[in-house]
Amino acid sequence: MTTAVLTDTKMKTFEELESTVRSYSRSWPTIFTKAKGYKLWDIDDKEYIDFFAGAGALNYGHNDAAMQEKLIDYIRNDGIIHSLDMGTTPRQEFLQRFKEVILTPRELDYKVMFPGPTGTNTVESALKIARKVTERDTVISFTNAFHGMTIGSLSVTGNSFKRHGAGIPLHHTVSMPFDEYVEDQDSIRYLERFLEDSGSGVALPAAIILETVQGEGGINAARMEWLKKIENICRRWDILLIVDDVQAGCGRTGTFFSFEPAGIVPDIICLSKSIGGIGLPMAITLIRHEYDKWGPGEHNGTFRGNNLAFLAATEALTYWETDEFSIAIQEKASLLHNAIKTIIQKYPELGGEARGRGLMQGIAVENTDNLSGKICAEAFKRGLIVETSGPNDEVVKFLPPLIIDEAGLKKGLMILEESINHVLD
Amino acid sequence: MTTAVLTDTKMKTFEELESTVRSYSRSWPTIFTKAKGYKLWDIDDKEYIDFFAGAGALNYGHNDAAMQEKLIDYIRNDGIIHSLDMGTTPRQEFLQRFKEVILTPRELDYKVMFPGPTGTNTVESALKIARKVTERDTVISFTNAFHGMTIGSLSVTGNSFKRHGAGIPLHHTVSMPFDEYVEDQDSIRYLERFLEDSGSGVALPAAIILETVQGEGGINAARMEWLKKIENICRRWDILLIVDDVQAGCGRTGTFFSFEPAGIVPDIICLSKSIGGIGLPMAITLIRHEYDKWGPGEHNGTFRGNNLAFLAATEALTYWETDEFSIAIQEKASLLHNAIKTIIQKYPELGGEARGRGLMQGIAVENTDNLSGKICAEAFKRGLIVETSGPNDEVVKFLPPLIIDEAGLKKGLMILEESINHVLD
Amino acid sequence: MTTAVLTDTKMKTFEELESTVRSYSRSWPTIFTKAKGYKLWDIDDKEYIDFFAGAGALNYGHNDAAMQEKLIDYIRNDGIIHSLDMGTTPRQEFLQRFKEVILTPRELDYKVMFPGPTGTNTVESALKIARKVTERDTVISFTNAFHGMTIGSLSVTGNSFKRHGAGIPLHHTVSMPFDEYVEDQDSIRYLERFLEDSGSGVALPAAIILETVQGEGGINAARMEWLKKIENICRRWDILLIVDDVQAGCGRTGTFFSFEPAGIVPDIICLSKSIGGIGLPMAITLIRHEYDKWGPGEHNGTFRGNNLAFLAATEALTYWETDEFSIAIQEKASLLHNAIKTIIQKYPELGGEARGRGLMQGIAVENTDNLSGKICAEAFKRGLIVETSGPNDEVVKFLPPLIIDEAGLKKGLMILEESINHVLD
Amino acid sequence: MTTAVLTDTKMKTFEELESTVRSYSRSWPTIFTKAKGYKLWDIDDKEYIDFFAGAGALNYGHNDAAMQEKLIDYIRNDGIIHSLDMGTTPRQEFLQRFKEVILTPRELDYKVMFPGPTGTNTVESALKIARKVTERDTVISFTNAFHGMTIGSLSVTGNSFKRHGAGIPLHHTVSMPFDEYVEDQDSIRYLERFLEDSGSGVALPAAIILETVQGEGGINAARMEWLKKIENICRRWDILLIVDDVQAGCGRTGTFFSFEPAGIVPDIICLSKSIGGIGLPMAITLIRHEYDKWGPGEHNGTFRGNNLAFLAATEALTYWETDEFSIAIQEKASLLHNAIKTIIQKYPELGGEARGRGLMQGIAVENTDNLSGKICAEAFKRGLIVETSGPNDEVVKFLPPLIIDEAGLKKGLMILEESINHVLD
Repeated sequence: MTTAVLTDTKMKTFEELESTVRSYSRSWPTIFTKAKGYKLWDIDDKEYIDFFAGAGALNYGHNDAAMQEKLIDYIRNDGIIHSLDMGTTPRQEFLQRFKEVILTPRELDYKVMFPGPTGTNTVESALKIARKVTERDTVISFTNAFHGMTIGSLSVTGNSFKRHGAGIPLHHTVSMPFDEYVEDQDSIRYLERFLEDSGSGVALPAAIILETVQGEGGINAARMEWLKKIENICRRWDILLIVDDVQAGCGRTGTFFSFEPAGIVPDIICLSKSIGGIGLPMAITLIRHEYDKWGPGEHNGTFRGNNLAFLAATEALTYWETDEFSIAIQEKASLLHNAIKTIIQKYPELGGEARGRGLMQGIAVENTDNLSGKICAEAFKRGLIVETSGPNDEVVKFLPPLIIDEAGLKKGLMILEESINHVLD
Repeated sequence: MTTAVLTDTKMKTFEELESTVRSYSRSWPTIFTKAKGYKLWDIDDKEYIDFFAGAGALNYGHNDAAMQEKLIDYIRNDGIIHSLDMGTTPRQEFLQRFKEVILTPRELDYKVMFPGPTGTNTVESALKIARKVTERDTVISFTNAFHGMTIGSLSVTGNSFKRHGAGIPLHHTVSMPFDEYVEDQDSIRYLERFLEDSGSGVALPAAIILETVQGEGGINAARMEWLKKIENICRRWDILLIVDDVQAGCGRTGTFFSFEPAGIVPDIICLSKSIGGIGLPMAITLIRHEYDKWGPGEHNGTFRGNNLAFLAATEALTYWETDEFSIAIQEKASLLHNAIKTIIQKYPELGGEARGRGLMQGIAVENTDNLSGKICAEAFKRGLIVETSGPNDEVVKFLPPLIIDEAGLKKGLMILEESINHVLD
Repeated sequence: MTTAVLTDTKMKTFEELESTVRSYSRSWPTIFTKAKGYKLWDIDDKEYIDFFAGAGALNYGHNDAAMQEKLIDYIRNDGIIHSLDMGTTPRQEFLQRFKEVILTPRELDYKVMFPGPTGTNTVESALKIARKVTERDTVISFTNAFHGMTIGSLSVTGNSFKRHGAGIPLHHTVSMPFDEYVEDQDSIRYLERFLEDSGSGVALPAAIILETVQGEGGINAARMEWLKKIENICRRWDILLIVDDVQAGCGRTGTFFSFEPAGIVPDIICLSKSIGGIGLPMAITLIRHEYDKWGPGEHNGTFRGNNLAFLAATEALTYWETDEFSIAIQEKASLLHNAIKTIIQKYPELGGEARGRGLMQGIAVENTDNLSGKICAEAFKRGLIVETSGPNDEVVKFLPPLIIDEAGLKKGLMILEESINHVLD
Repeated sequence: MTTAVLTDTKMKTFEELESTVRSYSRSWPTIFTKAKGYKLWDIDDKEYIDFFAGAGALNYGHNDAAMQEKLIDYIRNDGIIHSLDMGTTPRQEFLQRFKEVILTPRELDYKVMFPGPTGTNTVESALKIARKVTERDTVISFTNAFHGMTIGSLSVTGNSFKRHGAGIPLHHTVSMPFDEYVEDQDSIRYLERFLEDSGSGVALPAAIILETVQGEGGINAARMEWLKKIENICRRWDILLIVDDVQAGCGRTGTFFSFEPAGIVPDIICLSKSIGGIGLPMAITLIRHEYDKWGPGEHNGTFRGNNLAFLAATEALTYWETDEFSIAIQEKASLLHNAIKTIIQKYPELGGEARGRGLMQGIAVENTDNLSGKICAEAFKRGLIVETSGPNDEVVKFLPPLIIDEAGLKKGLMILEESINHVLD
């Protein structure tokens, strides 16, 4: 009771002054002050394990020391902070290092576009260039896709609550079934049939846009063979393949790009969230050379030149100079996967189903009576930051920072299990 | 010739690795390294006067010392950098200070929404909530408006090159004539007639969105009486009035909000660019209490919690605690206006026309043979950063940082005049 | 009272079995049985003067004897009645006669398309071919335009009640002010300004569609110089000019095509209503040779081959072999115009304004308390069929059959005046 | 050779004066003059068996004697021909007889709307009222659907050539797989999954529109159980069910409405083509009482009152007073079905597949080298009118008038077989 009152007082500023649209400050009703690595602390000095990582924006953890150092030095030396798409040293260094560390070793040949600093900016730019290059207007997206909240990105997003928020009908897109969407039905055959039949009512699209693992949509991981088939469809019908790697990229699934194990080469790749290293707003769009047909300034934006983000982003690339980081992620992913399976078996009342891959996993539960929400709320009380996803919020989603150590991962999982135990009691 | 070769070498990284969409690095082909106040320096230690101010994002100049200090301290203390819409100390402080310093003294009662950190995010959120609240789909915008590059914002933007870049037709909007759009014709009567006539083909809109001074559209400043009439129209027909103050706000025209001298009270206000103080990505949407009907998370975004920006934003509010800053801007605005008039008279070959108000002014020239572009290019060579705007890039646009001193302003104007002289020769 | 009860009984079938969408059977609550020339008779043998002419579909009056003869002969001889776009004798004869009597004497060179038998079919086909030929999507229409009720035609129609009935937002069109739409404002300048300014927010359109006299919109007759200016605009910007002559064509304004006095040559002309001669469904779209780029069957429809209509249509062309018919219409138009002016002067309470030209005229009244509707209702009781039009039904509209004789016209006007007198009492 | 030259001369008028959009006059290059029952004659007195029946508009054959008599009498007596939606005797009689003969015996309770005289008019009106009643904008249609050529109807039509002809993107609709669309995949499960999943990207629709047998789409007959499941889906999610019975209705499949054997009750039914009895333009929309929420005149059209069509339509209802007609159709359907199966077996080179039900059947052939087109062309030469359908014109389609006798049917089939024989040689 006392706590509740205190909480109310603590959150008063937000309740009184901030729009009702606020969301996370409702689930986690406290004021955060400090953060380091995989931990956060709030105004009452309470410590939290982070299984959320800024919704995937903090793959390298909070306040990486090397990045901090770079930022402080740069600011102290009056480095130019805001530069639109003017040339600056941090921008130049990022471009060079990104090519050296990421593109060249993977034999990838993309032009880098700075479309504005958020995920939805990169998606909007990807849709624009795909439509321009192909001179077609339709884009195919998938059930339970999430690509962003501005009208272009929202039109390829599946969630009806978000779509409804547009206040207008969303056009020029067709929603097709994601991998394993309908039990015992082959979504590839369905897609092919619509494309090959001139009477299907679905026009030849400019592009197919997909997430290899749908984060907001419920941690749905497409099979590698499905991704390969989608790429084949794109090649067969001359459709551009856009991979939105905003959440699943930057190592989240174990490789820098989430699609690497599938052996596919997208025409356009959207990156944001962790590309900025330390959690500062940044996004890039990778475009195959032959499709980089933009006119100068045809897409622009004031915050395309966030130099602090470029500095941290360049520093973050250090993690990718060798295989070590990737291997470590995959080991932790196995640990997480096994823990999830154990929990599911131990608590059959959950009706749990394991989801995802890499450090992007979850447990889908039978969500009567908001079970998943209750587990996350209990976990918060016990010092674990974890949230739900999925069309009905039915998935407890685990996105720890990739730099978490085994001890941290185990401690987080212990709190999770205690929370489940408590809620099911 | 030697310079040209050197320049080429210098910009090689951008030319080879960055998308053809890049724009400012073409106009100003150098690499910037440092910036302070109203000055920038490039890799060759050349100094530039800034009459551009990050397209309006640097009203308080580069690297304000107090803001720098706050950022460095915060980073050094592992302050939480990325927080979505979780509660944090910098967010709380910003909300409180914004209310104290900006809203309360102006007797304004808005809820603050963090819609994502860019101008287009705030515009998209404004359009969404206006449509939701009114249950109407049309939004009226004005000729030569610029509101952003994502599909929702682009649909209320006038520029045909930008609109065409969408690759799809843009809907749910109607473009009406801005103030003094057609010579000797009353744009208010035109708008009223369309609204009052049930046979006009224009549906009752959810909202009217406008900039009080159109920046990208050519520094077109609406008259105060026109703004007042638009507000009256909104009240008469129960239409929401959205003021996009992304470029003209935060003191650019002399008052914190650009519409203050008109005595109007918008239903929704869009702020970005200089709201972040030091040039870090940040945006807010101000919504009248009664229209704050969002569901939690109905609009969201990963980078709504850029705490470094909140720190600088809070510090920037210090400028608004008294009238001094505002008065100083208006004095410099007079100086700038007189200088412009003098130039126009002195160089009749320009066919010049003075545009704008506050420190958002320009000279529209008769733009045969890209005269305006040549002037800006020459100014760059001579150490002045200044760009064009308008549908045909016919306006030389002056947006110095508001903190510029008289000496800086005069020096910039001197370079400008030399450049004009050189080009007209 | 007795009458009311009888009326109710009479209309019972319609009230019980027909949709609430029914309209004219509400204004004129009787059952019509016979019609000849400019007269109708109802089930009670009451005679009515026709100032409505099937909303312009009966320019040649009811049951023209020569047409009747042709139909009866054809049916009796098992002539093919329904033929889609197969070759038939009546189709062949119509095509030949239309060329001989209408096109050749006017030095016009159009291909004839049979787009389906209604006005909205011809408009939809015109919009389609204009968009195909120009590869642009926007069409400019005018305030208070009426072009039909299917989604394509409705999107260029002004009336908000009709538009709202679509149940979806209507796109790809821009509504511009018709001639003399806003007092003392030049609508041509507005339109030009929007077209010449690349920042106007209005894309270069595929076509401009217009009625020279807006029938449903309130009998608004464009001035000839305005039409000529619109044609010039079309030529200057390479926009197709579509004249929807469905209601104003076929002699309604005194010449076969309503635009003849303006000296313009549209790129596409829409004809329906009276083109079928005796009131049978028929429509044609005239397309300049160079724009006839249809693929076979790209637009089609089951009832494109209404051979009974072709027979009557061919017979109707006889009226146009000499100038006599045209001259006679213009004489009657003068008589009508003078009568209207007299009425307006005699009854200042009407606040009347004369509208229209040819035998397409009306009186706009100050429509407090549904004055216009009351006049028409009273006229019906007294044996005159006349209806209202305009966005607020404020215009009493006169569309007598063109073949009406002076006596008929005068008798109708007498009833009208009696009705006005009665209502104003 | 001589024939070819003669043909050219014969069709000259159409080639020179008619738009390139003409289609049937290309497949059947002659001029038809007379027609009776299931036969046509051309200008050279050549006789043709009709397996086309005006694309389904002549179910009762050409020039039914009783209908002819009624038309001639009515015209001779100056019966009112054109009446919009005014009350007339033929309209009243049609409404009463339609209720007595069709609705009441089937225990159906619909209001009758006259939406304009063509198929696309009834479809557009159905879409409008469904959207109005539900306040939703999306309509679900099916692959290979054909509903008409105006923008509203075209948006629910599958054919890409027709859709492309719109010149604009078509919105507010979602195309779902028709029955047995993808081999071994359950289209009902797909549809249900999209509806039950709030993240599917498909909004709850206003209506589902379908043809029970897709005519233009390739004579695809849905199974009765599939129709029943679709009805269940509509009830479960409160979606309106629209059956477009324009081609399959009026007895074409053996019962008056094509859906009767499925035991379903649509919310809205679209009828046109043969509803007019003798091939005159007419259409009606049947709307369940509770959904008849139109405002007066909210949808209208000039040719809603085609009294000659009403006369023939009323006469045609006589066929439905007893079961005889229905039984006879079904007997002929069996004969046709057996003949088709025999042909398929006898000519394995066709790779033939039997399609359809009732007197709406076809043979889908392996259509390399336009085999189906060649068969129809050869049949025409030999005196049989038969056309193709399907997305690749791969189906030879049989739509004889329902009144054809066994001798006529057999003679037509004999010509068909000879043509196949000739083409395959």
